Amino acid sequence: MTPSDTSPKIARLALSTRSIAEVPAQAAKAAELLSMRGPGFSLRLDEATCIAMQMRLVHYPAGAKLFVAGDHTNTSYMLLILEGDVSVDTGVFVGAGKVDISVIGAGALIGELALLDGSPRSASCTAITPVIAAALSAGGLQRLLEQHPMVAAKLAIYIARSAGDRLRSLSEQLRMYDQLTASLQEEVNQLRASTAK
Amino acid sequence: MTPSDTSPKIARLALSTRSIAEVPAQAAKAAELLSMRGPGFSLRLDEATCIAMQMRLVHYPAGAKLFVAGDHTNTSYMLLILEGDVSVDTGVFVGAGKVDISVIGAGALIGELALLDGSPRSASCTAITPVIAAALSAGGLQRLLEQHPMVAAKLAIYIARSAGDRLRSLSEQLRMYDQLTASLQEEVNQLRASTAK
Repeated sequence: MTPSDTSPKIARLALSTRSIAEVPAQAAKAAELLSMRGPGFSLRLDEATCIAMQMRLVHYPAGAKLFVAGDHTNTSYMLLILEGDVSVDTGVFVGAGKVDISVIGAGALIGELALLDGSPRSASCTAITPVIAAALSAGGLQRLLEQHPMVAAKLAIYIARSAGDRLRSLSEQLRMYDQLTASLQEEVNQLRASTAK
Repeated sequence: MTPSDTSPKIARLALSTRSIAEVPAQAAKAAELLSMRGPGFSLRLDEATCIAMQMRLVHYPAGAKLFVAGDHTNTSYMLLILEGDVSVDTGVFVGAGKVDISVIGAGALIGELALLDGSPRSASCTAITPVIAAALSAGGLQRLLEQHPMVAAKLAIYIARSAGDRLRSLSEQLRMYDQLTASLQEEVNQLRASTAK
Protein backbone atom coordinates (compact mmCIF):
# COMPACT_ATOMS: atom_id res chain seq x y z
CA MET A 1 0.00 0.00 0.00
CA THR A 2 1.25 3.46 -0.87
CA PRO A 3 0.55 6.50 1.30
CA SER A 4 -1.67 7.94 -1.42
CA ASP A 5 -4.19 5.16 -0.84
CA THR A 6 -5.66 6.88 2.17
CA SER A 7 -5.99 10.63 2.27
CA PRO A 8 -5.19 12.25 5.61
CA LYS A 9 -8.75 13.52 5.80
CA ILE A 10 -10.37 10.11 5.48
CA ALA A 11 -7.99 8.80 8.06
CA ARG A 12 -8.65 11.68 10.42
CA LEU A 13 -12.42 11.61 10.14
CA ALA A 14 -12.93 7.94 10.07
CA LEU A 15 -10.23 7.04 12.60
CA SER A 16 -9.43 3.95 10.63
CA THR A 17 -9.95 2.68 7.12
CA ARG A 18 -9.24 -0.74 5.76
CA SER A 19 -9.38 -2.48 2.43
CA ILE A 20 -12.95 -3.39 1.64
CA ALA A 21 -11.67 -6.82 0.61
CA GLU A 22 -11.34 -7.60 4.33
CA VAL A 23 -15.13 -7.31 4.69
CA PRO A 24 -16.55 -9.47 1.88
CA ALA A 25 -20.19 -8.55 2.57
CA GLN A 26 -19.44 -4.85 2.11
CA ALA A 27 -17.28 -5.54 -0.96
CA ALA A 28 -20.21 -7.45 -2.48
CA LYS A 29 -22.59 -4.61 -1.61
CA ALA A 30 -20.31 -2.01 -3.22
CA ALA A 31 -20.05 -4.12 -6.38
CA GLU A 32 -23.81 -4.65 -6.51
CA LEU A 33 -24.52 -0.91 -6.12
CA LEU A 34 -22.00 -0.01 -8.85
CA SER A 35 -23.40 -2.59 -11.25
CA MET A 36 -26.99 -1.32 -10.91
CA ARG A 37 -26.82 1.21 -13.72
CA GLY A 38 -28.58 1.90 -17.03
CA PRO A 39 -28.18 0.53 -20.55
CA GLY A 40 -25.07 0.45 -22.74
CA PHE A 41 -21.49 0.54 -21.45
CA SER A 42 -22.81 -0.75 -18.08
CA LEU A 43 -20.65 -2.31 -15.42
CA ARG A 44 -21.20 -6.04 -15.12
CA LEU A 45 -21.07 -7.46 -11.59
CA ASP A 46 -17.61 -8.98 -12.16
CA GLU A 47 -16.34 -5.61 -13.45
CA ALA A 48 -17.90 -3.75 -10.51
CA THR A 49 -16.13 -6.25 -8.22
CA CYS A 50 -12.79 -5.22 -9.79
CA ILE A 51 -13.54 -1.64 -8.77
CA ALA A 52 -14.67 -2.63 -5.28
CA MET A 53 -11.36 -4.47 -4.78
CA GLN A 54 -9.56 -1.09 -5.10
CA MET A 55 -11.77 0.55 -2.48
CA ARG A 56 -11.29 1.19 1.20
CA LEU A 57 -14.03 0.92 3.80
CA VAL A 58 -14.73 4.11 5.75
CA HIS A 59 -16.97 4.62 8.77
CA TYR A 60 -18.28 8.06 9.71
CA PRO A 61 -20.19 8.84 12.92
CA ALA A 62 -23.44 10.84 12.67
CA GLY A 63 -22.62 14.54 12.33
CA ALA A 64 -19.27 13.98 10.62
CA LYS A 65 -18.41 16.21 7.67
CA LEU A 66 -17.57 13.97 4.73
CA PHE A 67 -16.73 16.92 2.46
CA VAL A 68 -16.71 20.69 2.95
CA ALA A 69 -17.68 22.95 0.00
CA GLY A 70 -14.71 24.87 -1.35
CA ASP A 71 -12.17 22.50 0.18
CA HIS A 72 -9.32 22.14 -2.27
CA THR A 73 -7.21 19.80 -0.17
CA ASN A 74 -7.91 16.08 0.06
CA THR A 75 -9.86 16.04 -3.17
CA SER A 76 -8.25 12.86 -4.35
CA TYR A 77 -10.99 10.37 -3.54
CA MET A 78 -14.66 9.73 -4.09
CA LEU A 79 -17.13 7.92 -1.87
CA LEU A 80 -19.81 5.35 -2.67
CA ILE A 81 -22.38 5.38 0.15
CA LEU A 82 -23.05 1.83 1.35
CA GLU A 83 -25.18 2.50 4.45
CA GLY A 84 -26.69 5.56 6.14
CA ASP A 85 -27.95 8.97 5.06
CA VAL A 86 -25.90 11.95 3.95
CA SER A 87 -27.11 15.53 3.50
CA VAL A 88 -25.71 17.41 0.52
CA ASP A 89 -25.69 21.20 0.88
CA THR A 90 -24.74 23.06 -2.29
CA GLY A 91 -24.82 26.44 -0.54
CA VAL A 92 -27.41 27.67 -3.05
CA PHE A 93 -30.49 29.38 -1.58
CA VAL A 94 -33.82 28.38 -3.05
CA GLY A 95 -35.91 31.35 -1.90
CA ALA A 96 -37.36 32.34 1.46
CA GLY A 97 -33.99 31.84 3.10
CA LYS A 98 -34.14 28.11 2.41
CA VAL A 99 -30.95 26.42 1.31
CA ASP A 100 -30.95 23.68 -1.31
CA ILE A 101 -30.23 20.51 0.67
CA SER A 102 -30.83 17.01 -0.56
CA VAL A 103 -30.47 13.73 1.29
CA ILE A 104 -28.79 10.80 -0.38
CA GLY A 105 -28.29 7.21 0.69
CA ALA A 106 -26.94 3.83 -0.36
CA GLY A 107 -25.72 3.75 -3.96
CA ALA A 108 -25.01 7.49 -4.22
CA LEU A 109 -21.59 8.57 -5.42
CA ILE A 110 -20.08 11.77 -4.04
CA GLY A 111 -16.84 13.59 -4.74
CA GLU A 112 -16.30 11.80 -8.04
CA LEU A 113 -15.57 14.90 -10.12
CA ALA A 114 -12.95 16.25 -7.73
CA LEU A 115 -11.27 12.83 -7.95
CA LEU A 116 -10.95 13.26 -11.72
CA ASP A 117 -9.87 16.89 -11.95
CA GLY A 118 -8.72 17.90 -8.46
CA SER A 119 -11.26 20.73 -8.36
CA PRO A 120 -12.46 21.96 -4.94
CA ARG A 121 -15.39 20.12 -3.37
CA SER A 122 -18.59 21.61 -4.79
CA ALA A 123 -20.90 20.80 -1.88
CA SER A 124 -20.76 20.12 1.85
CA CYS A 125 -21.73 16.57 2.74
CA THR A 126 -22.65 15.64 6.32
CA ALA A 127 -23.48 12.26 7.81
CA ILE A 128 -27.04 12.42 9.21
CA THR A 129 -26.82 8.88 10.57
CA PRO A 130 -23.71 6.74 11.02
CA VAL A 131 -22.43 6.19 7.49
CA ILE A 132 -20.44 3.38 5.91
CA ALA A 133 -18.85 4.28 2.59
CA ALA A 134 -16.41 2.80 0.09
CA ALA A 135 -13.63 5.22 -0.90
CA LEU A 136 -11.78 5.10 -4.22
CA SER A 137 -8.60 7.18 -4.27
CA ALA A 138 -6.74 8.61 -7.27
CA GLY A 139 -4.16 5.88 -6.60
CA GLY A 140 -6.86 3.22 -6.72
CA LEU A 141 -8.19 4.63 -9.98
CA GLN A 142 -4.68 4.67 -11.45
CA ARG A 143 -4.20 0.98 -10.53
CA LEU A 144 -7.58 0.19 -12.05
CA LEU A 145 -6.53 1.98 -15.27
CA GLU A 146 -3.36 -0.07 -15.45
CA GLN A 147 -4.75 -3.46 -14.42
CA HIS A 148 -8.30 -3.34 -15.81
CA PRO A 149 -8.51 -0.48 -18.32
CA MET A 150 -11.86 -1.60 -19.75
CA VAL A 151 -13.37 -1.51 -16.26
CA ALA A 152 -11.80 1.89 -15.57
CA ALA A 153 -13.36 3.13 -18.83
CA LYS A 154 -16.80 1.93 -17.79
CA LEU A 155 -16.36 3.50 -14.34
CA ALA A 156 -15.47 6.82 -15.96
CA ILE A 157 -18.54 6.51 -18.21
CA TYR A 158 -20.59 5.78 -15.06
CA ILE A 159 -19.21 8.96 -13.46
CA ALA A 160 -19.86 11.03 -16.60
CA ARG A 161 -23.45 9.76 -16.60
CA SER A 162 -23.92 10.76 -12.95
CA ALA A 163 -22.64 14.21 -13.89
CA GLY A 164 -25.12 14.25 -16.79
CA ASP A 165 -27.98 13.45 -14.41
CA ARG A 166 -26.93 16.32 -12.18
CA LEU A 167 -26.57 18.67 -15.14
CA ARG A 168 -30.14 17.91 -16.17
CA SER A 169 -31.38 18.47 -12.63
CA LEU A 170 -29.52 21.82 -12.36
CA SER A 171 -30.89 22.90 -15.76
CA GLU A 172 -34.37 22.13 -14.47
CA GLN A 173 -33.70 24.28 -11.38
CA LEU A 174 -32.48 27.09 -13.65
CA ARG A 175 -35.74 26.91 -15.62
CA MET A 176 -37.71 27.19 -12.36
CA TYR A 177 -35.66 30.23 -11.34
CA ASP A 178 -36.40 31.65 -14.76
CA GLN A 179 -40.12 31.47 -14.20
CA LEU A 180 -39.76 32.75 -10.64
CA THR A 181 -37.77 35.84 -11.65
CA ALA A 182 -40.16 36.51 -14.55
CA SER A 183 -43.20 36.48 -12.25
CA LEU A 184 -41.41 38.58 -9.61
CA GLN A 185 -40.40 41.07 -12.30
CA GLU A 186 -44.00 41.28 -13.47
CA GLU A 187 -45.19 41.89 -9.91
CA VAL A 188 -42.60 44.65 -9.51
CA ASN A 189 -43.81 46.27 -12.74
CA GLN A 190 -47.48 46.11 -11.70
CA LEU A 191 -46.73 47.49 -8.23
CA ARG A 192 -44.67 50.30 -9.75
CA ALA A 193 -47.50 51.14 -12.15
CA SER A 194 -50.07 51.22 -9.34
CA THR A 195 -47.73 53.30 -7.13
CA ALA A 196 -47.27 55.78 -9.96
CA LYS A 197 -51.04 56.31 -10.27
CA MET B 1 -18.01 0.11 -41.79
CA THR B 2 -21.31 -0.71 -40.05
CA PRO B 3 -24.46 1.36 -40.56
CA SER B 4 -24.23 2.56 -36.93
CA ASP B 5 -21.06 4.49 -37.78
CA THR B 6 -22.99 7.34 -39.30
CA SER B 7 -26.30 8.38 -37.86
CA PRO B 8 -28.97 9.27 -40.42
CA LYS B 9 -29.00 12.83 -39.01
CA ILE B 10 -25.31 13.45 -39.58
CA ALA B 11 -25.66 12.03 -43.05
CA ARG B 12 -28.72 14.15 -43.81
CA LEU B 13 -27.32 17.40 -42.50
CA ALA B 14 -23.82 17.04 -43.72
CA LEU B 15 -24.63 15.43 -47.05
CA SER B 16 -21.52 13.33 -46.76
CA THR B 17 -19.20 12.17 -44.02
CA ARG B 18 -15.94 10.31 -44.33
CA SER B 19 -13.37 8.83 -42.04
CA ILE B 20 -11.18 11.55 -40.67
CA ALA B 21 -8.20 9.32 -41.45
CA GLU B 22 -8.69 10.28 -45.10
CA VAL B 23 -7.81 13.89 -44.21
CA PRO B 24 -4.59 13.65 -42.18
CA ALA B 25 -4.45 17.39 -41.37
CA GLN B 26 -7.90 17.26 -39.75
CA ALA B 27 -7.08 14.02 -37.96
CA ALA B 28 -3.98 15.68 -36.52
CA LYS B 29 -6.01 18.70 -35.49
CA ALA B 30 -8.63 16.56 -33.73
CA ALA B 31 -5.89 14.68 -31.86
CA GLU B 32 -4.17 17.89 -30.86
CA LEU B 33 -7.40 19.44 -29.56
CA LEU B 34 -8.25 16.31 -27.55
CA SER B 35 -4.79 16.12 -26.04
CA MET B 36 -4.85 19.74 -24.83
CA ARG B 37 -6.40 19.00 -21.45
CA GLY B 38 -5.47 19.43 -17.77
CA PRO B 39 -3.36 17.46 -15.36
CA GLY B 40 -3.64 13.80 -14.33
CA PHE B 41 -5.27 11.08 -16.47
CA SER B 42 -4.67 13.29 -19.52
CA LEU B 43 -4.73 12.09 -23.08
CA ARG B 44 -1.27 11.96 -24.63
CA LEU B 45 -1.06 12.91 -28.31
CA ASP B 46 -0.65 9.27 -29.39
CA GLU B 47 -3.72 8.31 -27.33
CA ALA B 48 -5.73 11.22 -28.74
CA THR B 49 -4.72 10.02 -32.21
CA CYS B 50 -6.30 6.60 -31.41
CA ILE B 51 -9.56 8.40 -30.72
CA ALA B 52 -9.31 10.57 -33.83
CA MET B 53 -8.88 7.42 -35.93
CA GLN B 54 -12.41 6.36 -34.87
CA MET B 55 -13.92 9.68 -35.87
CA ARG B 56 -15.71 10.82 -39.00
CA LEU B 57 -15.34 14.22 -40.57
CA VAL B 58 -18.54 16.25 -40.85
CA HIS B 59 -19.13 19.55 -42.67
CA TYR B 60 -22.08 21.78 -41.78
CA PRO B 61 -23.07 24.89 -43.75
CA ALA B 62 -23.74 28.12 -41.81
CA GLY B 63 -27.23 27.99 -40.32
CA ALA B 64 -27.35 24.20 -40.02
CA LYS B 65 -28.80 22.74 -36.83
CA LEU B 66 -26.19 20.38 -35.34
CA PHE B 67 -28.49 19.36 -32.47
CA VAL B 68 -32.02 20.28 -31.45
CA ALA B 69 -32.87 20.49 -27.73
CA GLY B 70 -35.18 17.67 -26.65
CA ASP B 71 -34.35 15.51 -29.66
CA HIS B 72 -34.22 11.92 -28.48
CA THR B 73 -33.41 10.38 -31.82
CA ASN B 74 -29.90 10.36 -33.28
CA THR B 75 -28.30 10.84 -29.88
CA SER B 76 -25.60 8.30 -30.51
CA TYR B 77 -22.71 10.56 -31.41
CA MET B 78 -20.78 13.51 -30.11
CA LEU B 79 -18.99 16.24 -32.05
CA LEU B 80 -15.58 17.81 -31.55
CA ILE B 81 -15.58 21.22 -33.26
CA LEU B 82 -12.51 21.56 -35.48
CA GLU B 83 -13.30 24.82 -37.31
CA GLY B 84 -16.04 27.45 -37.17
CA ASP B 85 -18.41 28.84 -34.54
CA VAL B 86 -21.45 27.19 -33.03
CA SER B 87 -24.15 28.83 -30.91
CA VAL B 88 -25.44 26.77 -27.98
CA ASP B 89 -28.96 27.67 -26.87
CA THR B 90 -30.03 25.96 -23.65
CA GLY B 91 -33.57 27.38 -23.88
CA VAL B 92 -33.10 29.00 -20.47
CA PHE B 93 -34.10 32.67 -20.23
CA VAL B 94 -31.72 34.95 -18.35
CA GLY B 95 -34.05 37.85 -17.65
CA ALA B 96 -35.45 40.63 -19.81
CA GLY B 97 -36.53 38.10 -22.44
CA LYS B 98 -32.91 37.25 -23.17
CA VAL B 99 -32.08 33.62 -23.75
CA ASP B 100 -28.86 32.06 -22.48
CA ILE B 101 -26.80 31.54 -25.64
CA SER B 102 -23.10 30.90 -25.73
CA VAL B 103 -20.79 30.62 -28.70
CA ILE B 104 -18.21 27.87 -28.84
CA GLY B 105 -15.45 27.11 -31.29
CA ALA B 106 -12.55 24.81 -32.07
CA GLY B 107 -11.83 22.31 -29.29
CA ALA B 108 -15.35 22.32 -27.85
CA LEU B 109 -17.10 18.99 -27.38
CA ILE B 110 -20.89 18.81 -27.80
CA GLY B 111 -23.38 16.00 -27.41
CA GLU B 112 -20.99 13.87 -25.37
CA LEU B 113 -23.42 13.02 -22.57
CA ALA B 114 -26.17 11.87 -24.91
CA LEU B 115 -23.57 9.60 -26.52
CA LEU B 116 -22.97 7.92 -23.15
CA ASP B 117 -26.53 7.60 -21.87
CA GLY B 118 -28.82 8.12 -24.86
CA SER B 119 -30.58 11.02 -23.13
CA PRO B 120 -32.28 13.68 -25.29
CA ARG B 121 -30.12 16.55 -26.53
CA SER B 122 -30.02 19.19 -23.79
CA ALA B 123 -29.37 22.23 -25.99
CA SER B 124 -29.87 23.40 -29.55
CA CYS B 125 -26.61 23.91 -31.41
CA THR B 126 -26.52 25.91 -34.62
CA ALA B 127 -23.62 26.56 -36.98
CA ILE B 128 -23.01 30.34 -37.13
CA THR B 129 -20.28 29.94 -39.74
CA PRO B 130 -19.49 26.90 -41.87
CA VAL B 131 -18.40 24.25 -39.36
CA ILE B 132 -16.07 21.30 -39.63
CA ALA B 133 -16.43 18.76 -36.82
CA ALA B 134 -15.18 15.30 -35.92
CA ALA B 135 -17.96 12.90 -34.94
CA LEU B 136 -17.50 9.94 -32.62
CA SER B 137 -20.40 7.47 -32.70
CA ALA B 138 -21.42 4.93 -30.06
CA GLY B 139 -20.01 2.30 -32.42
CA GLY B 140 -16.70 4.16 -32.57
CA LEU B 141 -16.60 4.39 -28.78
CA GLN B 142 -17.35 0.66 -28.51
CA ARG B 143 -14.45 -0.16 -30.88
CA LEU B 144 -12.20 2.12 -28.87
CA LEU B 145 -13.23 0.30 -25.66
CA GLU B 146 -12.35 -3.04 -27.22
CA GLN B 147 -9.14 -2.06 -29.01
CA HIS B 148 -7.70 0.62 -26.71
CA PRO B 149 -9.50 0.40 -23.36
CA MET B 150 -6.98 2.65 -21.57
CA VAL B 151 -7.58 5.38 -24.16
CA ALA B 152 -11.36 4.89 -23.89
CA ALA B 153 -11.01 5.30 -20.12
CA LYS B 154 -9.12 8.55 -20.49
CA LEU B 155 -11.68 9.80 -23.03
CA ALA B 156 -14.49 9.03 -20.59
CA ILE B 157 -12.55 10.89 -17.86
CA TYR B 158 -12.15 13.80 -20.29
CA ILE B 159 -15.93 13.80 -20.87
CA ALA B 160 -16.65 13.60 -17.15
CA ARG B 161 -14.35 16.58 -16.58
CA SER B 162 -16.13 18.59 -19.27
CA ALA B 163 -19.40 17.79 -17.49
CA GLY B 164 -17.79 18.91 -14.22
CA ASP B 165 -16.84 22.23 -15.80
CA ARG B 166 -20.39 22.75 -16.96
CA LEU B 167 -21.78 21.74 -13.54
CA ARG B 168 -19.64 24.42 -11.92
CA SER B 169 -20.76 27.00 -14.46
CA LEU B 170 -24.46 26.11 -13.95
CA SER B 171 -24.02 26.26 -10.15
CA GLU B 172 -22.58 29.74 -10.57
CA GLN B 173 -25.60 30.74 -12.67
CA LEU B 174 -27.91 29.37 -9.96
CA ARG B 175 -26.13 31.53 -7.37
CA MET B 176 -26.67 34.58 -9.57
CA TYR B 177 -30.38 33.75 -9.91
CA ASP B 178 -30.43 33.41 -6.15
CA GLN B 179 -29.25 36.94 -5.67
CA LEU B 180 -31.53 38.22 -8.43
CA THR B 181 -34.68 36.68 -6.95
CA ALA B 182 -33.72 37.89 -3.46
CA SER B 183 -33.35 41.49 -4.64
CA LEU B 184 -36.57 41.30 -6.69
CA GLN B 185 -38.42 39.88 -3.68
CA GLU B 186 -37.12 42.72 -1.55
CA GLU B 187 -38.29 45.26 -4.11
CA VAL B 188 -41.75 43.64 -4.18
CA ASN B 189 -41.89 43.84 -0.38
CA GLN B 190 -40.88 47.49 -0.33
CA LEU B 191 -43.34 48.42 -3.07
CA ARG B 192 -46.13 46.56 -1.26
CA ALA B 193 -45.30 48.37 1.97
CA SER B 194 -45.35 51.76 0.27
CA THR B 195 -48.59 50.92 -1.57
CA ALA B 196 -50.24 49.93 1.73
CA LYS B 197 -49.39 53.30 3.28
